[in-house]
Amino acid sequence: MKFIQGIFAFALISTSLSAQSPDEVAIRTIFNEALQRGKSYDMLRELSTNVGARLSGSPGAAKGVVWSEQTMKTFGFDSVWKQPVMVPQWVRGQKEVGKIISNKKEQAVNICALGGSVGTGTSGITAQVIEVKNFDELKALGTKNVQGKIVFFNRPMDASLVDTFEAYGGAVNQRALGPSEAAKYGAVAAVVRSMGAEIEDYPHTGGLRYAADVKQIPAVAISTLHAEVLSKLLKEDKTLQFHFESHSTTLQEVESFNVIGEIKGSEYPDEIIVVGGHLDSWDLAQGAHDDGAGCVQSIEVLRIMKAIGYKPKHTIRAVMFMNEENGLRGGTKYAELAKQNKENHVAAIESDRGGFVPRGFTITAAEPVKAKIKSWKKLFEPYGLTDFEHEGGGADIGPLNQQFGVPVLEFLPDSQRYFKYHHTKEDTFDKVNQRELELGAASITSLVYLMDQYGLK
Amino acid sequence: MKFIQGIFAFALISTSLSAQSPDEVAIRTIFNEALQRGKSYDMLRELSTNVGARLSGSPGAAKGVVWSEQTMKTFGFDSVWKQPVMVPQWVRGQKEVGKIISNKKEQAVNICALGGSVGTGTSGITAQVIEVKNFDELKALGTKNVQGKIVFFNRPMDASLVDTFEAYGGAVNQRALGPSEAAKYGAVAAVVRSMGAEIEDYPHTGGLRYAADVKQIPAVAISTLHAEVLSKLLKEDKTLQFHFESHSTTLQEVESFNVIGEIKGSEYPDEIIVVGGHLDSWDLAQGAHDDGAGCVQSIEVLRIMKAIGYKPKHTIRAVMFMNEENGLRGGTKYAELAKQNKENHVAAIESDRGGFVPRGFTITAAEPVKAKIKSWKKLFEPYGLTDFEHEGGGADIGPLNQQFGVPVLEFLPDSQRYFKYHHTKEDTFDKVNQRELELGAASITSLVYLMDQYGLK
Repeated sequence: MKFIQGIFAFALISTSLSAQSPDEVAIRTIFNEALQRGKSYDMLRELSTNVGARLSGSPGAAKGVVWSEQTMKTFGFDSVWKQPVMVPQWVRGQKEVGKIISNKKEQAVNICALGGSVGTGTSGITAQVIEVKNFDELKALGTKNVQGKIVFFNRPMDASLVDTFEAYGGAVNQRALGPSEAAKYGAVAAVVRSMGAEIEDYPHTGGLRYAADVKQIPAVAISTLHAEVLSKLLKEDKTLQFHFESHSTTLQEVESFNVIGEIKGSEYPDEIIVVGGHLDSWDLAQGAHDDGAGCVQSIEVLRIMKAIGYKPKHTIRAVMFMNEENGLRGGTKYAELAKQNKENHVAAIESDRGGFVPRGFTITAAEPVKAKIKSWKKLFEPYGLTDFEHEGGGADIGPLNQQFGVPVLEFLPDSQRYFKYHHTKEDTFDKVNQRELELGAASITSLVYLMDQYGLK
Repeated sequence: MKFIQGIFAFALISTSLSAQSPDEVAIRTIFNEALQRGKSYDMLRELSTNVGARLSGSPGAAKGVVWSEQTMKTFGFDSVWKQPVMVPQWVRGQKEVGKIISNKKEQAVNICALGGSVGTGTSGITAQVIEVKNFDELKALGTKNVQGKIVFFNRPMDASLVDTFEAYGGAVNQRALGPSEAAKYGAVAAVVRSMGAEIEDYPHTGGLRYAADVKQIPAVAISTLHAEVLSKLLKEDKTLQFHFESHSTTLQEVESFNVIGEIKGSEYPDEIIVVGGHLDSWDLAQGAHDDGAGCVQSIEVLRIMKAIGYKPKHTIRAVMFMNEENGLRGGTKYAELAKQNKENHVAAIESDRGGFVPRGFTITAAEPVKAKIKSWKKLFEPYGLTDFEHEGGGADIGPLNQQFGVPVLEFLPDSQRYFKYHHTKEDTFDKVNQRELELGAASITSLVYLMDQYGLK
């Protein structure tokens, strides 16, 4: 498009502050700070490229803890501290190798071990493959068809669903529970179609959960492209063999930390509003969208308040939770300490759906609280946030809701691109757009501002 | 984020077709086709990477015409034809060179000639620089301060505006009209800060319009990063010199074409609904977002209708307009032929804001028509389109509205990323997300479906 349109198209929007309510002015001021002098993008550059991958227990995670503490101290928040927490330590080891062997020809495929998986050992695993779309099919096949084989879970995410998180929810049990389901029937390994919304040549990792009572078998994700190839070749040659080598292992638990920054409330210092993201990330990339974005947006909430001279009535905390990806130890520890210290939480907001353009917030709370939050919707519409209708809250703040009934919310950015990057080598800083990240930080700050002004009672 | 959330967060959304109205079912069917079996992304890959840049009069543009015609013929539309139109032929020549010379030190900067600009000749231009933010400042400086100098227009796009098109509209007169404004006061050249929403090291080209009555001086865009550098150095050394070489020139007009595909209406064959994009693109990249996306989405509208077996009552046309970027000859010619052939256009929709996630449609029409379109808003909300409040229509369909009062609309995708790629070397296929592009195609198809079902009277 060229210039003619740009000049005339949007003459309707008034940005005059004069006719606006105090809340409208405050929110406009917050967005101006985020968009004109914001620090979220610079922070994310540092966290993604200087710190990098931050899997629980890794040197990167330790570096992320130091970075978070130093960054929040530099911004001069009232207090910055660490909460020690023991975390699992899973390591991938050397890069996985995978291939399809059919008619004595070999085809290399892109795979990666699922988080928490045992490795194959150096000789790898070679076996015939049985493809299933769901656990019912697996059950129907039973031990006589599955024993000694590799189970290939190949149900795609449903592309017709507009919300990609819904599509993810409809497919991810294959990754989370599939390996143990396969082991029940004597499978020697599991290959799971990547949780990707499109056809790509790189795999998506992510956590599995072994059942307590069955053998732990090695499990890998295969790229969606190679899942299609494997499925096609299987139709032509039911006796083809799949070979893979993975070297992952689980080491001893180690000490890590949640990192917390706080601005003390002027009127209700004992009433806390939490904004948080998770500091840990999978090992394949930089954890830029998942969840560096949520971390820097949380820090940015407090920084913006200081920068515009807003003194909150309630205590506002930015929490970098540790170990969301493979244990939730940080979120669990935070709630445990909240109980021990008799802390009173007004609400908790998590940002863990990537640094994409804002669409709204999910809310899990009692109806009157929900209604109060929805009554603020009009204030967000000029900034493109219109979706306040869905249930949901972040994983890390789940324990606060489950144990103490704290209202929990999750920042809801647009979901279309998330599952292109999620848990892959592609989750790098260059995939984050500066303005989208900043609009998210401003949206969360605005919501915290409203909660602080009006409470949730 | 991990799997727990995904499974539970969106249980609220029902995708059952049983309780839906016929329109809801039709629109769901359209989206399913676009998302599950869509061709827009494959088409855009071909147009971006096989055809590439398509500046009016270039071999690329000619290749784009052939591609469009062949593609629509392959899909079996009822008719596919070309409308001859004469277009200007501006060529950039070899890559531009720019540098700042201060205290005998030289610093290279990234520039590119503005579309339509004359070149400097091989020796280039070297002169002192005078920085201004707007035309009033320039006027106040007057001939005595400007004569013999290079005018540096350095007013940024306003980052605080949520809508980046509004920010573009507030800055682009510097590029479009600045060179002639500078020439009025005896400037020897113009350097214009790129129309980019962020700080980047690459320049954005785009058309200028020389005034009839002043000397045509060479004009280039400078990257936002180097605009900042130049401005800073100018504060330290007001006598610094800027040197640049550009080799652009305007050749003879040549024949090119609009390319049109059509499905004939079953009840009102003489009443036409147009969907279009512009086939030409700037020469620096592939024209993927601007406006390959709009072209393939327009073709996809007709393809989807055929694929789902929908037989429109009105005639539906996909129009690839030629020469939007530097002349609007295609749009003008289309309206001229519509008049000549006494065609009756019900409405025209353009997609020329990039292949990003849908937000809504702009509407320029009489109030009752607007009200009718807005009454369909509820049908689009499940797909994330909520913005039907803005005026606007695409440039190419402007003549249809201005000359015959045809209601015109523009597809409104999210605007945050557009001005990172617009008119730059970065406007390549890899910047387009498959699902976002497909959702756009489905949204436009759904709107055409509703117009076809209910008319606009």
